[in-house]
Parts: sequence; structure tokens; C-alpha cells
Amino acid sequence: MIFENMDRIVFAGDSVTDMGSTNPVGEGLFDHLGQGYVREVESMLAAWYPTLNLRITNSGISGNTSRDLLARFDRDVVALHPDWVSICIGINDVWRQFDEPAIPDDAVLPEEYARNVEEMIVRIKDRVKGVFLLSPYYMEPNREDAMRRRMDEYVAICASLAEKHGCRFVNFQKLYEEYCRIQHSSRIAWDRVHPNRIGATLMAKEFLKACEFDFSR
Amino acid sequence: MIFENMDRIVFAGDSVTDMGSTNPVGEGLFDHLGQGYVREVESMLAAWYPTLNLRITNSGISGNTSRDLLARFDRDVVALHPDWVSICIGINDVWRQFDEPAIPDDAVLPEEYARNVEEMIVRIKDRVKGVFLLSPYYMEPNREDAMRRRMDEYVAICASLAEKHGCRFVNFQKLYEEYCRIQHSSRIAWDRVHPNRIGATLMAKEFLKACEFDFSR
Amino acid sequence: MIFENMDRIVFAGDSVTDMGSTNPVGEGLFDHLGQGYVREVESMLAAWYPTLNLRITNSGISGNTSRDLLARFDRDVVALHPDWVSICIGINDVWRQFDEPAIPDDAVLPEEYARNVEEMIVRIKDRVKGVFLLSPYYMEPNREDAMRRRMDEYVAICASLAEKHGCRFVNFQKLYEEYCRIQHSSRIAWDRVHPNRIGATLMAKEFLKACEFDFSR
Amino acid sequence: MIFENMDRIVFAGDSVTDMGSTNPVGEGLFDHLGQGYVREVESMLAAWYPTLNLRITNSGISGNTSRDLLARFDRDVVALHPDWVSICIGINDVWRQFDEPAIPDDAVLPEEYARNVEEMIVRIKDRVKGVFLLSPYYMEPNREDAMRRRMDEYVAICASLAEKHGCRFVNFQKLYEEYCRIQHSSRIAWDRVHPNRIGATLMAKEFLKACEFDFSR
Amino acid sequence: MIFENMDRIVFAGDSVTDMGSTNPVGEGLFDHLGQGYVREVESMLAAWYPTLNLRITNSGISGNTSRDLLARFDRDVVALHPDWVSICIGINDVWRQFDEPAIPDDAVLPEEYARNVEEMIVRIKDRVKGVFLLSPYYMEPNREDAMRRRMDEYVAICASLAEKHGCRFVNFQKLYEEYCRIQHSSRIAWDRVHPNRIGATLMAKEFLKACEFDFSR
Amino acid sequence: MIFENMDRIVFAGDSVTDMGSTNPVGEGLFDHLGQGYVREVESMLAAWYPTLNLRITNSGISGNTSRDLLARFDRDVVALHPDWVSICIGINDVWRQFDEPAIPDDAVLPEEYARNVEEMIVRIKDRVKGVFLLSPYYMEPNREDAMRRRMDEYVAICASLAEKHGCRFVNFQKLYEEYCRIQHSSRIAWDRVHPNRIGATLMAKEFLKACEFDFSR
Amino acid sequence: MIFENMDRIVFAGDSVTDMGSTNPVGEGLFDHLGQGYVREVESMLAAWYPTLNLRITNSGISGNTSRDLLARFDRDVVALHPDWVSICIGINDVWRQFDEPAIPDDAVLPEEYARNVEEMIVRIKDRVKGVFLLSPYYMEPNREDAMRRRMDEYVAICASLAEKHGCRFVNFQKLYEEYCRIQHSSRIAWDRVHPNRIGATLMAKEFLKACEFDFSR
Amino acid sequence: MIFENMDRIVFAGDSVTDMGSTNPVGEGLFDHLGQGYVREVESMLAAWYPTLNLRITNSGISGNTSRDLLARFDRDVVALHPDWVSICIGINDVWRQFDEPAIPDDAVLPEEYARNVEEMIVRIKDRVKGVFLLSPYYMEPNREDAMRRRMDEYVAICASLAEKHGCRFVNFQKLYEEYCRIQHSSRIAWDRVHPNRIGATLMAKEFLKACEFDFSR
Repeated sequence: MIFENMDRIVFAGDSVTDMGSTNPVGEGLFDHLGQGYVREVESMLAAWYPTLNLRITNSGISGNTSRDLLARFDRDVVALHPDWVSICIGINDVWRQFDEPAIPDDAVLPEEYARNVEEMIVRIKDRVKGVFLLSPYYMEPNREDAMRRRMDEYVAICASLAEKHGCRFVNFQKLYEEYCRIQHSSRIAWDRVHPNRIGATLMAKEFLKACEFDFSR
Repeated sequence: MIFENMDRIVFAGDSVTDMGSTNPVGEGLFDHLGQGYVREVESMLAAWYPTLNLRITNSGISGNTSRDLLARFDRDVVALHPDWVSICIGINDVWRQFDEPAIPDDAVLPEEYARNVEEMIVRIKDRVKGVFLLSPYYMEPNREDAMRRRMDEYVAICASLAEKHGCRFVNFQKLYEEYCRIQHSSRIAWDRVHPNRIGATLMAKEFLKACEFDFSR
Repeated sequence: MIFENMDRIVFAGDSVTDMGSTNPVGEGLFDHLGQGYVREVESMLAAWYPTLNLRITNSGISGNTSRDLLARFDRDVVALHPDWVSICIGINDVWRQFDEPAIPDDAVLPEEYARNVEEMIVRIKDRVKGVFLLSPYYMEPNREDAMRRRMDEYVAICASLAEKHGCRFVNFQKLYEEYCRIQHSSRIAWDRVHPNRIGATLMAKEFLKACEFDFSR
Repeated sequence: MIFENMDRIVFAGDSVTDMGSTNPVGEGLFDHLGQGYVREVESMLAAWYPTLNLRITNSGISGNTSRDLLARFDRDVVALHPDWVSICIGINDVWRQFDEPAIPDDAVLPEEYARNVEEMIVRIKDRVKGVFLLSPYYMEPNREDAMRRRMDEYVAICASLAEKHGCRFVNFQKLYEEYCRIQHSSRIAWDRVHPNRIGATLMAKEFLKACEFDFSR
Repeated sequence: MIFENMDRIVFAGDSVTDMGSTNPVGEGLFDHLGQGYVREVESMLAAWYPTLNLRITNSGISGNTSRDLLARFDRDVVALHPDWVSICIGINDVWRQFDEPAIPDDAVLPEEYARNVEEMIVRIKDRVKGVFLLSPYYMEPNREDAMRRRMDEYVAICASLAEKHGCRFVNFQKLYEEYCRIQHSSRIAWDRVHPNRIGATLMAKEFLKACEFDFSR
Repeated sequence: MIFENMDRIVFAGDSVTDMGSTNPVGEGLFDHLGQGYVREVESMLAAWYPTLNLRITNSGISGNTSRDLLARFDRDVVALHPDWVSICIGINDVWRQFDEPAIPDDAVLPEEYARNVEEMIVRIKDRVKGVFLLSPYYMEPNREDAMRRRMDEYVAICASLAEKHGCRFVNFQKLYEEYCRIQHSSRIAWDRVHPNRIGATLMAKEFLKACEFDFSR
Repeated sequence: MIFENMDRIVFAGDSVTDMGSTNPVGEGLFDHLGQGYVREVESMLAAWYPTLNLRITNSGISGNTSRDLLARFDRDVVALHPDWVSICIGINDVWRQFDEPAIPDDAVLPEEYARNVEEMIVRIKDRVKGVFLLSPYYMEPNREDAMRRRMDEYVAICASLAEKHGCRFVNFQKLYEEYCRIQHSSRIAWDRVHPNRIGATLMAKEFLKACEFDFSR
Repeated sequence: MIFENMDRIVFAGDSVTDMGSTNPVGEGLFDHLGQGYVREVESMLAAWYPTLNLRITNSGISGNTSRDLLARFDRDVVALHPDWVSICIGINDVWRQFDEPAIPDDAVLPEEYARNVEEMIVRIKDRVKGVFLLSPYYMEPNREDAMRRRMDEYVAICASLAEKHGCRFVNFQKLYEEYCRIQHSSRIAWDRVHPNRIGATLMAKEFLKACEFDFSR
């Protein structure tokens, strides 16, 4: 496994990362880490690798677009001196284009999205052992759906930035694409975005694969 | 318009009909009618036809399947002596097959659905001036989606029963099919089921068309 | 219809406009637009003209007089760069003269009212495609009632300012005058001011008539 | 003053009597008596006649019509063995005819109203030292208002029953008629029914006049 | 009666004056005036003298000593430009000497009390038509009780300051002394300080006597 | 000390015993024992005699008179099979005579009080190791106060019944009499009845003296 | 893996099983399954074996001893017709012996514990595909601790009953024994009983091992 | 007893001291002193020595380490001009090393702990009549437990600083060590840290012994 004892991993993101965590930054006892994939990641790391003490920090805030996250990235990520950083952003950048089509201020278009995400990577990558780029997603198996098509552009931007900057890329869109071939999306989320605990576990498992986690221990 | 002064119209259904109305039956002052299409129907009738006093009653209860509605149909519909009855049921019959695939007790399969709805029609149709059958729906434009396919079976059952028993049929599935060619479903509902106020207005408009409502007054 | 795709319409006013909207300014998802005529206007526009994306913003605040609204007009209206502005103010200017007769500070007399409203019009009219002036009202059919007589003065001021500055004038006092010939005012509002949903629908319908809205679509 | 030491006076009625009192019956310490005219009556009796201990009981329940009050009259009035009984009912009998014109079940027409009130008087009058009949009212000075005209019929029924059965009659409609010549009704109540504390004091004063209360003590 | 149309009367004090009023200053509609003697004073003035519009303002704050009231006197009394001012302070100055004997900071001794009250009178008396000095009190009929004895010193200071500066003096201690000869103090207040509504009415009546109020109107 | 390992002591009473305990009967973990003298008794017993396990049960209910307590004595005391029983009742029997002088039903006069308390003693005394009779009290040092005088009658009844039936008598009236020579009653309770924690500790200490508790351990 | 598609697994137990689940029985959408190991078991099963639909039911109730669970076993377990049953009970049987030593009614001694658990096994084992017996535990590594020693007796009873009746035995005491060699118990639970999410994950992992779950999928 | 009339004693500490007291500093009426040993100390002092008025101030704040307490020591202790100061700190310094092993920022190691506590003593000791040093503790009788071993280091630091600076030392660790030979720690606290009321009484008794309190009075 790639993490070493006493490493600090900071997860930046939106509501999917936040899931009720303490804002702007949550960690430690009680429910400060929220109820989403970040909490599952912590639990699995602690249960499978009890001798490794890892500091998991949740810097997700509900409703954030990449523009919002960039604006607070120095305060909520860089200033925490993480060893590893995970970025999962973009769902709201896209969603607002479809649920509030008349309010362009609330959405972020692809070009700006790419700039925002790259700026975050650049600011942090030389200060950490590694950067994770977790793709945004829409649990919509129909590739012709307008929002899914749009999301695919953002996923592609992530993939491309991950490759350019040597980030570990986790493709949640692909994960859900495959899952939805087996179960209907409503098994995980009525709104195709906010996962229930099963979804959080799926995402944590996928994230941990990218960490060379050994589940057979 | 088909309604006459002092007619009573009872709307039976699930959460889409209920939308926060008083349970089991809501009507009259304050928010007893809830926030969904039933409330919009009442408002439009009262605003466009101020001389007509129409008693609108909401007998929708959240989470009901056709089995639940049938079990309370005598108490919450027949016993109210309505002049007109509207039935909009079936979404939960289908949804539970996909979001709780391991709990078959919570869902209702097509054959039983058809029996339940027909039983309701038979119990009431000779006691009223008319019965409205409002189709269930899933705001999913992709006809290949498994839940949409399933829903189409239930919509077809409704259409067939409406024809057999001379009910006025309102096809909400078709309404949303057409709407979703123009706007993304998330404009109306993140979960593709519970409409926001715009959706409630669309549905009220569609219902009122079936009442020969004159919007140009 | 007079609105064009992506137009922004800002509604300024008091509690009748506010009706539980987010303060000072509400728009977009959830209940930010409140439960009054503004919400109905948005719903009808979106349901009848689904291809038109219109940004509806509620800048109403409960209890405001024209003096209060003028004090925040730059922040809550002008700074939003609207394409259209609707102003509906004056009820509290009058009401406080009758329910708190010993507290003159809380009311606004006709001369100041005229100045306040005109100042708002002047500040915004050259920056927008059009200004709506919506009259204040008291749902009191008796023209001899002291408060109704007073309100009529304010309605006349509005009519005169609308004509002088080329605003689209919507006469809610007249609307309710006519409605109350058919139904008692308590059908719409016990306090003859705050409309229930039926009243909100009546007002939305009246507003949309002034927008050349085609209800027969 | 007509009351004697240790007399018990029971006030039966609707929301105007209830005003937040404990239901079905409130008396004694804390706020069990509610915030309306009944509380003011108790306070004035205790402050002006400190040597007289009088038991004041509030049997008002919000929303009651004469039909509802009659149904509980034995339990909430007769069974309490009062020395004096005050009945103030009828506002909802009338109001529902105007704010819910399509729901006739919720209103009570004049003929039934007369029967209901007379039945109450008959059941109690021989068991008590005296019965007060307090008229319903609508704080509407315009006698041409439809609801006011209707209310006047009910007030007349009260006056006539009071005379027939020797009850002490308190005419609240007349009280407010006179008050509204001086102040606008909104000084007392926005909805022209539920009095604020000033109204409660006016009504208590009027009630106490009928008790030969000596305010100059 | 001494008040003239449109006079403003400001009541400064502690919890006995406050009784749930809006802080720091409450007036007008709803319950802003609280539930104590100030509210009763307003109600009686409005009910007995409906043609007189009087602005009643409650500047009482729970827990205040004369030191606290003096510190906010300019903001909460002088700056309101009253026509009449009523001051009722001192209960907490005394009480804290007995319920928190080890915390001298929380109490105010007689010498300072006299200075504080006189300073308030001096600051306001030339700006108003009249000043009311309402004595503090302890509903303790036993003159040998230590707290009662202490309170008597404060009452005497008030009486003396009232005479020196020509204030209208209202002696609540004497009022309760007399009342307690007839009824036990627990009829009015379990803690011998905070009056229930009967006590508030007694105090309002006593205050109004000092205003030459005509109860026999 | 008189208690033996595993003894159960049940405290019956009113609000002074209850003090927020679970109703009708509270014991064991968390705050089931309430915040009054019963809780202090348990804490001191457990802290001074850690080897003795004693089951302390709170059967106090707020507002109870001796009539109320007798009515539930079998269920809430006898049926619990206590080893010791403590009865502390009578405050409300007296208080209601003074704070609700017109509602005789709510109070209990001396003769009935004596009967009620004796009935409780008789029902339990042969089933237990001992009965404690804890006097009611009023923290009023003035023996001429009407309520204190009345309370003294009840205390005397208790003393006499304790002697007649061999109960251990704890005189709380005397305890507070002495305490009030040193501190004012408001140090313990504003209403002279409900003790704060200091009062609870005083009462627990007095109770434990009657148990031959050794504080010098 | 031992479970087959559409199997129903019912988890009976106390607060460790319950963890906020709906009582008496919770399953399906939202948080009905609670926040403990049962939820983690469901999430892992669904995430690792998406094609298997398994119905997970939580029949845990906080504070239950084996006596309480036996009393409701027919209603909350047998009547649900499970395919598999898991029983995890005994912590409160032991705990009450130490935190409430004077209340023997609240605890269950070893002999009765053995009887209760065996009775549950006997009632269900022939109706299901398999029974899991999950040991109670105390996260106390010191075997000389009195409560740990006591708990070991109960664990031994479980082990012996599991062998006698062919149940699958999961030894949580051993799991935590080993974990506490690496981390302090306060990493999982301050009270050494109620696990945080890490503990829930550890327990779920241990349970799933007994199900031949393949984590390396 | 060492305290003199009107002495002020300030208790600084963490959650064990705080126990729900008003933050940052609580004293006087109501529950400002919280529910822990500080409240018991006040109650016993007032009950056993009623002629002594002592001002007890609670400056405990939940979650504080010695670092946090030092940071606010001037504001919350020195500036209050106490006559005596009690310091009870260190539990969180230790606990965070075990329940959050990956977050070193939240814990305080022994060397810093010694510096922090000594700095507090030095800042205050010449301004007061005496300083109490109350040891931190962990109610863990097993001296081999890792957290207990760690706590023993901190207790030793306290003992040594108390001797060096002439503070009165209260050894809560020893108190609980002895108590736990008789009862299990769960009788006092499930988490071995936060005492219930019995524990608070034990601690108050131990503290008062160090004050030469005479319990046999």
C-alpha cells in the first residue's frame, strides 16, 4: 500500500465528498468526516491496516463548483500540509447547466473547469507525495443523455490532466457505468449523484484500488 | 368545462399527489392540499372560473403502492361521496423493484397492479360523474432504461383500463417524454419522480386539458 | 411574449412579493423564490414556454415600505443587472397608518411614496428592457373604507408614474375589486392583504397578461 | 357586582374564547386560560375585587362551530357544575360559508345555528345562576359586506334567544361597530375576527359591564 | 387624563417591565410589548380612550440593575425622544445581595442606586412632559424580612428623588403591601417578584391612577 | 448506617422529590433519578459507602398532592417491593389553597391530608424495614405568614403520624427555619419551595442524618 | 460465498446491532439499517457482489438483554421468515452487573443467559439455512478486569452453544483482543462497547469472513 | 476550613471541570456552574458552612488540553482576581494520543505539558492565597494499560510541580485507583473519564479534604 505511517491525506471536493462532514474541514473523532466515501476510506484503512496511523481530512463542501474549490484551495488544502491530496470536483459545474439553465453564473463551462482543476494540481503537486484526481460522474448509463454527454467532457478533461501531471486517476464515471449494467442507478442514488452507503463503499473500494490496498489481508 | 358548481373532486395517489398534504385526506384552508399538482389544479380552477365553487380533496399518501391505495380506497375515496375521482398510482409499484431489489414485498408486479387499479375503478365508477386515470411515469427519456421500460408496461395497463371502463386518461409519461426533449429532466426533478413547482404546473395544465378547461378566458 | 431567452426579471417588493423567499434575494432551486405570485409566474412561464430559459429573481422583503425598498434598491435590484424589473410596493406604507396610528415613523405618506417610487423607476429604467409597476392593493370592496380610500391614492400615484415613465402598469387593486364582486375577500386572504395560492395564481395571471403571455398554447 | 365569592364561571366558545388556552378546558395557574378576553376578565375581576375568589374556566376550542360546541357541551360545560355560563359562538358557522364556499359540511346555516344555541341554553339554564349570550361578530363596519350581512342574521338570532330565555346579552358586533367608527379594524385585528390584546380588553370591559362591575372602585 | 394624542411614553426597567418584550426596545404590532404591566397599560388606554393614539414603548430588559439601565439609558430612552418616561428599577439591585451573597459585583448598594436613578432623572426630565418613578418592590408583607427591609430603603430613595425632581411617584411596594393583606403573595407570583397577569393588571391600574385615567368612562 | 447491602429505598413525593426524574418511577443510569435531594442522597451513599450497593428509586411526580400520591401508591411504591420507603408530600395540598383560592378541587385540607398520609403508612409499614416521613415545608421564616401557618399544621400532622406509626421523621420545615436565620430564602429557592442544588444538598444531609450516616468516614 | 440471490438475513441483537436503526425492525432505503456493523455488512455485500440481491434486516434494539430479545424473538425474527439469522446478545446482561450493581432485575446471570440463547437457537434453526452466533464482547484487553472476566464466561457459553447446535460462531471478543494489542481501545470506542465506524468495519469484515466472502474480487 | 468569607475560588480545567457550565466562565444562579464536581463543591460548602459566602467560578471548557488552557489563562483565570485557583488539566493531552493517533497536533506531550502547567502556576501563585493542583486521571485500574501508563507520567509531573511550587495537590488518579478496587469503573463512567454524579461527589469530597473541610459538622 502506498501510504506510510502518519501520512495525511486531504480530500477536496463537493457534496459527494462532504456528505455532512464538518465545514470547511473535518477530521478526527465523532462524525466530522461525514457519511460518504471519505469515511469509508478511513474505516477500511484502519480496519485492514491497524498498525498504520493515517490522518484523513475531509475538505469537501456541498454545492461547490471547481471555481468555489479553487477559491478556498489554499486555505482548505495547501495550508494543511498534506502528504497526499485527492480532488473530486465538477458535478455542480455541469449540473447547474441543466437544472438552472437560466442562471449561467452558477455553472462552470469546460474551458474554465480545465483551468481551475489544473491550477489546483499545479499549486499542490510539488508539495505532496501524490495527487489523486477523482472524476466527476453522473450515474446515467445512457451516453446520449445530454447531461451525461456533458459530464463525459469533464471526465475526459480530468483524465487528460491526470496524465499530463502524473496524478493517480480514479474514474468514478466508469465505475458507475459498469455498476449500472448490473443494477439500476436508483439502487445507489435516486438523483444519480449523491450515493447512499453502498455507493460510498463502491467508491471507497475504487479509490483504495488506486492506492494498492490489499483487500485479501 | 366539465365541472359543475359544488362538484367534489377527490385525487387519490402516492407522494406525487400527496406532496405534503394532510393525511389521510386534506382539503380547505391553509396547506392541507399540499404543494403538488392538486394544489395547482385548485388554484387554476379558482382563478380562471371564480364563479364555480369546486371542492378539491387530496387523498394522496406518500409511499403508497396500488396495493396500499386499494386497502384504503373505501375509507379515503368512496366514503367521501365524490362527484369525480382521479387516480394516479403505480410509481412505487415499479420503483421498489429497482431501489430495493431484494425486498419483493414492497413492490407490486404488473398483474396485481392491473387487478388493483381495476378494482378501484369498479368500486367507484357508477357512483361518480367521471373517473380520471392519471398514468404513473418516470421522467426518463431513454426508453431502454430498465425502470422506464417497466413503467411503460404500467402506463399501458392504465391506458387499457381507461379505455375499457371509459375513464378520462391523462398520460403523464408522454407529457414528460415531450418535455424532456426540450429540457433535461433535472430541470423538474433530480430524482425523475417528484416534480418541483414547474412540474406540478405542467401536470395541472395537462390534467385540466382533460377537463376541457379554457385557458384563454 | 415579450421575454427573450435568458432574460433576467427581478421582482422588488414587500411580503406579498417575498412570501417566504430567501432574503434579501432568492432564485434558482428549492424554495428560494417563495410561495407567492413570483413563484407562480416562474412556473407558468416554464410550463407554457419550455424552450425559453428565464431567470426569475425575488427581491421582496416582508414588511418593507417604499422607503425601505428604496434604501436597498441599488444592492438588491440595480446591481443584479436585470433585463426587466417589477416593482410592487406601498401596502405597508398605508397599513401602518391604520394598525399603528401612534407610530408615524413606520408609515410613509403619499408625497414621500411618490418620490420613492419615482426614484426607483428613474434609477433603473434606462438600464432595462422594461419596468413593470404593480399597484399595491387592499382587498376591500368598500370604497368608503378609510384604508381602501387611502390605498386608492397610492394606486393612482402608481398609475400616474407608470404613464409618465412608460412602465407597464398592473392594477392589482382593480383585479381584486372585480374578484370580490364574485367571491368574498376571505376566499383569498383573511387579512385582505396576503393572498393564498389562489390569489397568487390570480396575480400571476394578471401579471402575465401584461407580458403578452399566450395561455392558449 | 353579580358574582359571589367562590362562584365558577365557564366560558364556552371558539378561537376567540380559546386564544391558546388549554384544551378542552383550561383554568388556574400559568397560561391555561389563554390570551384572550377570558384572561382579561379574570385579571380585572381579581384586581378590582381582590376579596372575591372567582373560578374562571375557559372551555373555548379553536375552529368550533355551534355544532361542534353542542357536541361537547355536556362534557365541557354542564359536567363542570358552573354557577354561570357564557356562550360565544357562531363566527366559524358564518366564516366557512365565505372562505370555503365549496365545503358546505364545514359551515352551519342560520336555522341549525338557532337550534344549536337554543339547545345549549336549555340544557344549562336551570342549573346556573345565569347565562351570558355573547354575540358573534365580524369587525366589518360596512353593513353591505356579504359576510357582515350574514353575521347580522346570527347576531339577531342570539339577541332573540337571549330575550326568550332571559340570558344576559352582550353585543360584540355593536361594540366593534362603534369602535370602528373611531379606529380602523386593523388596529384590533388584521383578519377582522381574532382580536389583539386591545380587542380582548375592549371585550372584557363590555362583558364586565353586563356583570354590573364597578370600574370606579 | 394627562396624555395627549400622539404622545410617546417610554417604560424603562428590568424583567418586571420587560416580561418578554422585544429587546432592547419593543413596540407596535404582535407581542413586541411583552406580557407585563406595560402591555396592560397600552390595552387599557386604547380600550378606554379609543380616540387617543398613544405610542407605548417598552425599554425593559430582564436582569437589569440600575447600573445596567443607566449604561443604556441614552440609547434606549433619551434617543427615542419620548414625551413621557417611566422608570421602574431596583429589584435586581437588591435581590442579588440575597441570592448571590458572594458575588458583590452583581448587586448595587443604596448609595450607588440613588446616584444611578438620579442621573437618569436629570438626563431626561427637561426633555419630557413628565417623568414617572415606579418603585421597586418585594411582595413580602413581613417588614422584618431582610430583603423587604432592604427593599424599603430603595423605595424610600425613590420617593425622595421623586419629590426632589417633581416626578410622578407610583408606590408598587405599598400596592402589594395592601394586596397581601387580602390575598397571599403566591396568588400573584411564586417568587414574590414576577407578577402573573393579575399582578400586571393591578400594576397597570395603579400606574394609570397616577395618570388621572378615568375608569368610569 | 441503617441500610444494608442491596436494600431498595423508594422515595415517594411531589415536584421536590421528582425534580425532573423519569415518571412515574426513575432509577439507575443517566438522569432517571432527577436533580433533587434523592439524587444527592444516592451520590453521597455511593461516595461514602462504596461497598454498599443500594437501589434508590424516585417515585416523585410534580404537582402531586397527598390525594394524587395515594391514588398511585400501590403501583408506584408498594408493587416495587421496597426495603425502605420515604414519603414527602403535602406542599401542593397547602399551596393550592393560596395560589388558586377559587379552585378548591385542587387543594387537600388537613383532615383529608392526615387520612391520606396515614393510609399510605398503613399500606406499607409492615412490608418494609422502615418508613421515613419527610415533612412538607415552606421556606418562610415568618410564622405569621398565612401559608406558613397552614403548612405548620401539616408538619404537625406528619410529626404526629410518624410518632404513632414509628416512622423516622425528618423535619424539613425546621431545617429551613434554621437555615433562613442565616441566609435569605432566595439563596435556596426564589419560590420558597423548589430548592436549588444547595437546598437539595441540605435536604440530603438532613435525610442521611436520620439514617445514621457517618459523614466523617 | 454462502448467501444466494434473494436470501434474507436477519440480525438480532442490542445497541451494538441497532446503532440507530428503525425499531423494532429496520431495512431498505434511507437509514433504517442504522450506522453499525449491519449497515457495513450490507454495503460490502452490495459493493462486492452487485449481482446478488440480499435482504438485510436489522432487529437490534438498544439496551436489550438476552431476556428482552427472547421475549420479542418470535415477532421480530421468526415471523420474518428469514433464510439466515444472526444473534449477537449478552453485553447488557453483563454490563448491568457492574454499572447498576444494586438493580439485579436489569442484569441476566450466566445460567439464564445460556437458557435464553439456546431457546432462540432452537426456535429458529430448523427454519433457516444457517444461524450465526456472534459473541458479546468488552474491548478490555486486561483479562483480570472483573467485567472482562465475566464477559469471557458469556463468550464461552456462546462458543459452546454454537458448537452444540452447529451455528457459525463469530468471536468478536477475540477480534478486539487482537486489535487492542495494536491500538488502544479508545481508538474504536470510549466506552469499550459501542464501536465507531472503524469498529463497525472491523466487525463486518469478521462477520463476512464467516460467510466465505471473497474480498479479493 | 481554609476558605474565608467572600473568598473567590476559580476552577480551571477541561470537560471534567466544565460539565455543561457556561463558557468561558460560569457562576451564580441557575446551572451556570455545570453538573460536575465544581457544583458539588459549591453545594457542600454552602450546606455545611452556611455563614460563609464563597464565590465559586467554573472556568472549565470541554476538550481543552493544557495548551488551550494556557492560551486563555490570563483572560479566564488571572483577570478574575481569584483568592484561590484550582487547576485540573491533562486528560485530553493524553487521550488524543490514543483515540486520534494520526493527529499529533491535537495532543500534548509530557515535556510541553509540564511547561504549560508550570507556566500557569507561576503566573498566578503570587496573586492568590493558594493554588490547588488536581491531577488528571484515567479510571483504569490496570497499570499496564498504555493510556494509564501514559497518564501516570502526567500525574507524576503534577505531583512534582505541586511540591516545587507549594500547591495543594489532589490526586484523583489515586482516588479512582482505590475506588476501582471496590467497584467497577463503569459504576462511575462508561468512558473511564467523565464521572456521573457519584463520581462528581467523590471528587468534591476529595477536593474538600484538601481544604480541611469538616464533614462532621
